[in-house]
Amino acid sequence: MTVLVNGLAEERVPALDRGLQYGDGLFETLRLRDGVPLLWDRHWARLQRGLAALAIGGLREEDCLADLQRAAGPGSALAKLIVTRGSGPRGYAPPAGARPTRICAAEPESLRPAPGPLRFGLCRTRVAASPAPGCKHLNRLENVLARAEWAEGWDEGLMRDGAGRVVCGTQSNLILIDGDAMLTPALDRCGIRGTRRDWLLDRLRSEGVAVREALLPLGQLRAAGAWFFCNTRIGLRAAVPLFATRPARAPHPGLLALLQGLGEELDALG
Amino acid sequence: MTVLVNGLAEERVPALDRGLQYGDGLFETLRLRDGVPLLWDRHWARLQRGLAALAIGGLREEDCLADLQRAAGPGSALAKLIVTRGSGPRGYAPPAGARPTRICAAEPESLRPAPGPLRFGLCRTRVAASPAPGCKHLNRLENVLARAEWAEGWDEGLMRDGAGRVVCGTQSNLILIDGDAMLTPALDRCGIRGTRRDWLLDRLRSEGVAVREALLPLGQLRAAGAWFFCNTRIGLRAAVPLFATRPARAPHPGLLALLQGLGEELDALG
Repeated sequence: MTVLVNGLAEERVPALDRGLQYGDGLFETLRLRDGVPLLWDRHWARLQRGLAALAIGGLREEDCLADLQRAAGPGSALAKLIVTRGSGPRGYAPPAGARPTRICAAEPESLRPAPGPLRFGLCRTRVAASPAPGCKHLNRLENVLARAEWAEGWDEGLMRDGAGRVVCGTQSNLILIDGDAMLTPALDRCGIRGTRRDWLLDRLRSEGVAVREALLPLGQLRAAGAWFFCNTRIGLRAAVPLFATRPARAPHPGLLALLQGLGEELDALG
Repeated sequence: MTVLVNGLAEERVPALDRGLQYGDGLFETLRLRDGVPLLWDRHWARLQRGLAALAIGGLREEDCLADLQRAAGPGSALAKLIVTRGSGPRGYAPPAGARPTRICAAEPESLRPAPGPLRFGLCRTRVAASPAPGCKHLNRLENVLARAEWAEGWDEGLMRDGAGRVVCGTQSNLILIDGDAMLTPALDRCGIRGTRRDWLLDRLRSEGVAVREALLPLGQLRAAGAWFFCNTRIGLRAAVPLFATRPARAPHPGLLALLQGLGEELDALG
């Protein structure tokens, strides 16, 4: 793995960096081909939303792109770009003169979809309201604790909010087909708006498919006929619950074919 | 400021440390006198609760004490001890073989209570349900964003949960006296159980004062007659809201005197 800190080959960061002290920062997970990040505009847009929400200034797009290109090298790579508020004195108050820290780590990886659908269980750890809804900030203990719940044979874990409504996978977004309806959890209070999720929603809408965004009761998820998870690393993958379901309505064949086709298109990107 | 990483004079930590990657860790803020942390048993107990909640093993009390003593040196000092899950490969899954990272930073500081009560405003940033309620974990973006809201003249900011009930200050716990009642927000869903808060509650109970723990409607806070904040750094301090109040019941003079006396006792500790 290649690690750069503020563009320099360096595997350490200051202990007083606020990313470590408070999780005061953001990150992006990216696929690259020959140093070019896929769907960069979406990653950069989300990063900018997060920077605005946290009032972190002074990050230059060209620096991020240069870090990613240098860390990833030729071929297919998976990279993580962290941007923190930088170092500061003791205390929660964001220091006026802080300069953001960029941490970029990348390693070669090709997309290797395992055969068969992802199997997913139900996590006990709940998703609380996010201090920066939809943004990919560094406060990710919920995901860590939910991921630690995975049992033997799980490929993903389903997370719910405090009221028991379905929000996301521990590391991916969820899309359902319930009869004639395409559904995905609303992420305006909690969760992360995935770049692949938003790409899929935009493409679906441009095909005339209205995707309903709502926090879904678990019963509705159980009754759906087709489940999918998506993220940067896996693309779009069909999934099956490891808990009891009672599919009530067969997924509309046209919707199913459309979504599967978009998944293949996503894979073809990189 | 003196910084130690795993006991060594070192101001940097690995960029892949999970404390930075996910906020996967805990911290304590401590006062020390001549290298001895005050109320250590309470700090250590809270740290152990947090380690258990996060399933982080392998931290030795003697290592923490040695770090604190060495970083603080003689005289009065304020220290922060961070314990993370340590480094690991990509992904939320806690690595089986991780060894915790200790980061200890200390600087000399004497307790200098400013004259007059703390003035506190009302923050918009809400406190969500914590993945490890009461524990002092590293996911502190809410506190950072609330602290950034402080306006000119604020000494503290009041934080509420999603339902608008009062939980805490941005960096301290709250205690109210409302007539004959001593009240403090319940912290079983969100917030941090402060060592000074718990010390005060134990002492009050041993004096026969039942402190009611509940999430308080803002209206009840407005109607109370006496407000206090407490934490390691400030001890116990009287406070006055910077927003409209309508105190309905004068604080019971005996309760007020008892609490003020305990505050002086706290100050005398160090």
